[in-house]
Amino acid sequence: MQAILLSIGDELVLGQTVDTNTAWLAQRLIAMGIHCIEHRTVHDDQDAVARAITQTAKHCDLLIITGGLGPTDDDLTRQALAQAMDVELVEDPKSIAAIEAIFKKLGRAMPEQNRSQAMHPAGSAMIPNSCGTAPGLRAQLGQATIYVTPGVPREMEAMVKASVEPELRQCACESGHTARTILTAKLNTFGSGESDIAQRLGDLMSRERNPLVGTTVSAGQVSVRVRAEYESASEAADAIAQTIAEVESKLGALAFGRDETAIQDAVIALLVKEKKTIATAESCTGGLIASMLTDVPGSSAAVVGGWVTYANAMKTDQVDVPPQLIQQHGAVSGQVVQAMAAGAIERSGADFAISTSGVAGPGGGTPDKPVGTVWLGLAWRQGGAIVTDAWLARLTGNRAAIRDRAGKCALQLLRLHLMGQPLDLVRWVSRG
Amino acid sequence: MQAILLSIGDELVLGQTVDTNTAWLAQRLIAMGIHCIEHRTVHDDQDAVARAITQTAKHCDLLIITGGLGPTDDDLTRQALAQAMDVELVEDPKSIAAIEAIFKKLGRAMPEQNRSQAMHPAGSAMIPNSCGTAPGLRAQLGQATIYVTPGVPREMEAMVKASVEPELRQCACESGHTARTILTAKLNTFGSGESDIAQRLGDLMSRERNPLVGTTVSAGQVSVRVRAEYESASEAADAIAQTIAEVESKLGALAFGRDETAIQDAVIALLVKEKKTIATAESCTGGLIASMLTDVPGSSAAVVGGWVTYANAMKTDQVDVPPQLIQQHGAVSGQVVQAMAAGAIERSGADFAISTSGVAGPGGGTPDKPVGTVWLGLAWRQGGAIVTDAWLARLTGNRAAIRDRAGKCALQLLRLHLMGQPLDLVRWVSRG
Repeated sequence: MQAILLSIGDELVLGQTVDTNTAWLAQRLIAMGIHCIEHRTVHDDQDAVARAITQTAKHCDLLIITGGLGPTDDDLTRQALAQAMDVELVEDPKSIAAIEAIFKKLGRAMPEQNRSQAMHPAGSAMIPNSCGTAPGLRAQLGQATIYVTPGVPREMEAMVKASVEPELRQCACESGHTARTILTAKLNTFGSGESDIAQRLGDLMSRERNPLVGTTVSAGQVSVRVRAEYESASEAADAIAQTIAEVESKLGALAFGRDETAIQDAVIALLVKEKKTIATAESCTGGLIASMLTDVPGSSAAVVGGWVTYANAMKTDQVDVPPQLIQQHGAVSGQVVQAMAAGAIERSGADFAISTSGVAGPGGGTPDKPVGTVWLGLAWRQGGAIVTDAWLARLTGNRAAIRDRAGKCALQLLRLHLMGQPLDLVRWVSRG
Repeated sequence: MQAILLSIGDELVLGQTVDTNTAWLAQRLIAMGIHCIEHRTVHDDQDAVARAITQTAKHCDLLIITGGLGPTDDDLTRQALAQAMDVELVEDPKSIAAIEAIFKKLGRAMPEQNRSQAMHPAGSAMIPNSCGTAPGLRAQLGQATIYVTPGVPREMEAMVKASVEPELRQCACESGHTARTILTAKLNTFGSGESDIAQRLGDLMSRERNPLVGTTVSAGQVSVRVRAEYESASEAADAIAQTIAEVESKLGALAFGRDETAIQDAVIALLVKEKKTIATAESCTGGLIASMLTDVPGSSAAVVGGWVTYANAMKTDQVDVPPQLIQQHGAVSGQVVQAMAAGAIERSGADFAISTSGVAGPGGGTPDKPVGTVWLGLAWRQGGAIVTDAWLARLTGNRAAIRDRAGKCALQLLRLHLMGQPLDLVRWVSRG
């Protein structure tokens, strides 16, 4: 069963209101095995809405329309649906009574304008609204079943749960048609580009495959999305598990977690599991790494704390970077980040320390060290000694992107180190 | 001029990713006097995308398509556009060279898969991408001008600003077509709720007014939005300026800046203007405040650095909080945040220091100090001495929200202090 979602409203097409209804509806439908193939948002214009209904009804089994059921002149969904169905609007006496009852409860007479909310296209059915005055509608156009709900999220959600979902389930039962189950899963990676990930996945990304495997990028993180569509929930679950295992085996340690897991979640989980602690010494990332780590609930078990050594005096006085190291190599250097990490581990008593120093821009770049040049340091304990190492990342993007990628690179390097994996899996860093 | 926006991607129709591109685009277009009449989102299916292009191009002058330009097999927008235009895909040698140059800069060979990104429908033009490998496209289909941009917000926004908007302006000039001018402006506040702001604004919020004044809330920040629609640009600009001045006079120091100004931008600007410096000592915010401050370009002129004193030993050893203070009052107390701020200012030599200690949750709450209890400290120099003060914020929401609001409260308190304004304008803090 394929669904299309249609939202009505000037405020939505003008970008003044972000439409949260469609994502909510799409997820509810997927959970019932119905998948959305299109969302459409149309302004408050009767012809445009009618045209959208006519076009979309041809390409789906289920069309859910939200919005445009209010009592004011710019609410035109009823009229547009009647136009698309080529029928007249008729008044529903039961709905008039229900709307009057709502106003009576509020101690007021029903405004004449609200009478329009009891109108519906001939041949359609009205759906009660438990939270407002606008009844919903159910109609048929060609092979498509159409539901119309109010656009107010609270009213829409209540109506979908109370009336639309039970009817869809009932309908699936009566037709002897057991809804197909769609399950989705996501595997997150960091440190390599989308095309490299795709190359590693190879045939797994064929568009004919079920489960279907795709990739998306967000803030440098490449996520592999898996979608399985099967008759039974157990088949779908098995298929998802098997495909995820195949993806994991192709990606190795680049993949750090499923679904909403962030790189810092993976790092904190590893540290807690190993009963190890971490400190940070940040220059160009300016507290971002510490903030990412402490954003994880329970991170206090692993995070001791850290330093933001933005000024050079903070580097020398607070984490004991020798001043001559800065003079000789510059603050943005492998030598300085190693000294920062060593100072942080020594002063904090932590088991590991990560450090950063770079040029986040927009100013401060030089031919030698252009904007995007970031040194990343790592320190750890070995026997009684402190060992340090450093990597150079050359990053692109604006200041926020460079800081974000630098932070994630440092966390992925630490994670790979903790796992005993090769750190050069992170393709954005080199030995300098 | 009427526009339609078309987004491509399974993750969007399935509700796994919320589409923020369309609202951004719709607002940019409105600012240029171009109205959006429809948004459409289609899954990764070549026929469906081609059909959407064919249908929408018939009903608009401008069609902007985002997404599906990546190098992988599920990126099908180029093919779909060629199908809708009934032409072949051809390779663009200049784009191949540009993509190869990006990979060369990264010290790697171009993966063969990225070659697909240099393909474009015959008769279309390529638009350079300043932030990624996928060039955009410009084509004509009937009366509609079509632009295709990557779906990654950063790449899309850069391409629209650098290439699409200048072309659209040029085009409007050449046609001698003057549209009605719509100008918008935004004034940002922090420290008080939306209903309080609305009460202060009073009649300015009447729906019949032009410019229209409204409020929106995002991450605790209440923004006042002003929208003026006039025949001439100068009328609109004058009207906006006058309304903004009225809003500012009603809100006083609660308002910290216009449009995209964040609270940290306002704080850094003030510090730089006064040639003053700041240090941070953070417990529950864990580096977030330092990260917010150093996210501002040029912040190194004002930010010396800071400490993340997550463990109590970091508080005592690194910013000199007397251990007995923690024993007596607990780490989450006015006494401890004052000692943290004093230690930070003393050790760093900064002119000001801000500090935080609180219960961000989800665990760690007690009847006395429930989740959301956050103490905020401030230290400054007076004569030769260091003076400190502390406020108690009681915040709601999840861990991320509590940390975010605590950081913004601390920055607004510092800003009001710097301006000599009463700090109790921040209604979410008390003397404890």
